[in-house]
Amino acid sequence: MAKITIRGYHLDAYQHVNNARYLEFLEEARWQYFDNISREAYDEMGFAFIIVNINIDYRSSATLGDVINVNTEVAKIGSTSMTFNQKIVLEGTNQVICEAAITFVILNQQTGKPFKIDGELKSLLLKEISK
Amino acid sequence: MAKITIRGYHLDAYQHVNNARYLEFLEEARWQYFDNISREAYDEMGFAFIIVNINIDYRSSATLGDVINVNTEVAKIGSTSMTFNQKIVLEGTNQVICEAAITFVILNQQTGKPFKIDGELKSLLLKEISK
Amino acid sequence: MAKITIRGYHLDAYQHVNNARYLEFLEEARWQYFDNISREAYDEMGFAFIIVNINIDYRSSATLGDVINVNTEVAKIGSTSMTFNQKIVLEGTNQVICEAAITFVILNQQTGKPFKIDGELKSLLLKEISK
Amino acid sequence: MAKITIRGYHLDAYQHVNNARYLEFLEEARWQYFDNISREAYDEMGFAFIIVNINIDYRSSATLGDVINVNTEVAKIGSTSMTFNQKIVLEGTNQVICEAAITFVILNQQTGKPFKIDGELKSLLLKEISK
Repeated sequence: MAKITIRGYHLDAYQHVNNARYLEFLEEARWQYFDNISREAYDEMGFAFIIVNINIDYRSSATLGDVINVNTEVAKIGSTSMTFNQKIVLEGTNQVICEAAITFVILNQQTGKPFKIDGELKSLLLKEISK
Repeated sequence: MAKITIRGYHLDAYQHVNNARYLEFLEEARWQYFDNISREAYDEMGFAFIIVNINIDYRSSATLGDVINVNTEVAKIGSTSMTFNQKIVLEGTNQVICEAAITFVILNQQTGKPFKIDGELKSLLLKEISK
Repeated sequence: MAKITIRGYHLDAYQHVNNARYLEFLEEARWQYFDNISREAYDEMGFAFIIVNINIDYRSSATLGDVINVNTEVAKIGSTSMTFNQKIVLEGTNQVICEAAITFVILNQQTGKPFKIDGELKSLLLKEISK
Repeated sequence: MAKITIRGYHLDAYQHVNNARYLEFLEEARWQYFDNISREAYDEMGFAFIIVNINIDYRSSATLGDVINVNTEVAKIGSTSMTFNQKIVLEGTNQVICEAAITFVILNQQTGKPFKIDGELKSLLLKEISK
């Protein structure tokens, strides 16, 4: 779970976090989710996480000084794609700020083709093993 | 139609435009769509365009030096919400880079309630009149 | 001292952190420096920290997976301005990534004039007291 | 000269353009300055423009709807470095928003060493020739 404090540079003209910035918050949380994959493993395996769809509901707004928690969980694993559900909640409350489904494939940078998500790779993505 | 040239600062570790940056490109195009609404009208009417959902398909990637066109059209007008379809295409080709449906309400900043979208406001949003 | 892990979305076409992004890292560290000033105190006192100069040396580059530390210290307090020296260092090493002097005034948002930096305000900025 | 219209997503909590965002505006104008260098020439020659110092004065603030012009001129060419002066002015006025000196070297990505800036390269950078 990523924890982020909202600062002045996150806000836009409406004094709330800009819609694009939330996608950086979600990406940050996904990097943290994958902290079991070492930098060397990324490079060696030639992983490229390529997003194919984001469907995000903005439910309430976050503003200066708010502390938010970004939760990330696996929603679905297909043969070559994976979907996360991510939810941003105002810390210490049940107030949902936004919810998103993020679908991506993992390209093999050497071949340009998506990896099949099964076996050891699937276990790695589910964090059942660390590399 | 907004036209943007992809620069080094738009790219991320994969050498393509980052997923969050596209939302700024889409926002830029929406501001251009609404260029018929003067700054004074925004202030006077207390408009706040609040996004409630973005559903975006990333179909192919844009990289350094690419020129992209962002097309914006009204997909739907509800009683208090409006949906745009926006499509980003590589200039001079039919290659779709991404497609998004953006749904928003227009809050009245004085009351905190959404405006009903009908009459003169609806015509303004459809660009049938300029303010 | 702020601690930041470099992610894919921080990088640009050269596979290192983009020059503009470092200014967000420095701003993040300054917000953390001022964590003794409560949100209520900001609002009540009408503080606006307005930057007048940034002089930044980029000494080496940070890339994917690097962990950086951002150190912030007061370099100078003038009658109405204040200068921080901020240094970004690769964690666990002496390698300096960048160094910057940041000079700002604190505008009174009610009057639009800079506050004189003395007495209680000066102690607050030097973190000798918390609000 | 780059021309940019200030949008809601450029602003921060103070309702003016954030200090970091100006560095993107300046970078945009430098890419436009170098529009005489083709993408192929960049790749073939292995150019990497690496910034070593930015010294920026923020003189007044830009806000929603403002149109700004970013002027870029060569201030100095050293043996391996180059300095631009860049000035952002509110369109149709003499009001300076910010001024910056940007110093960079051009690394040869094949060797990791800076190019000597003379002869044909110098003429290219001064835009006396196009590639």
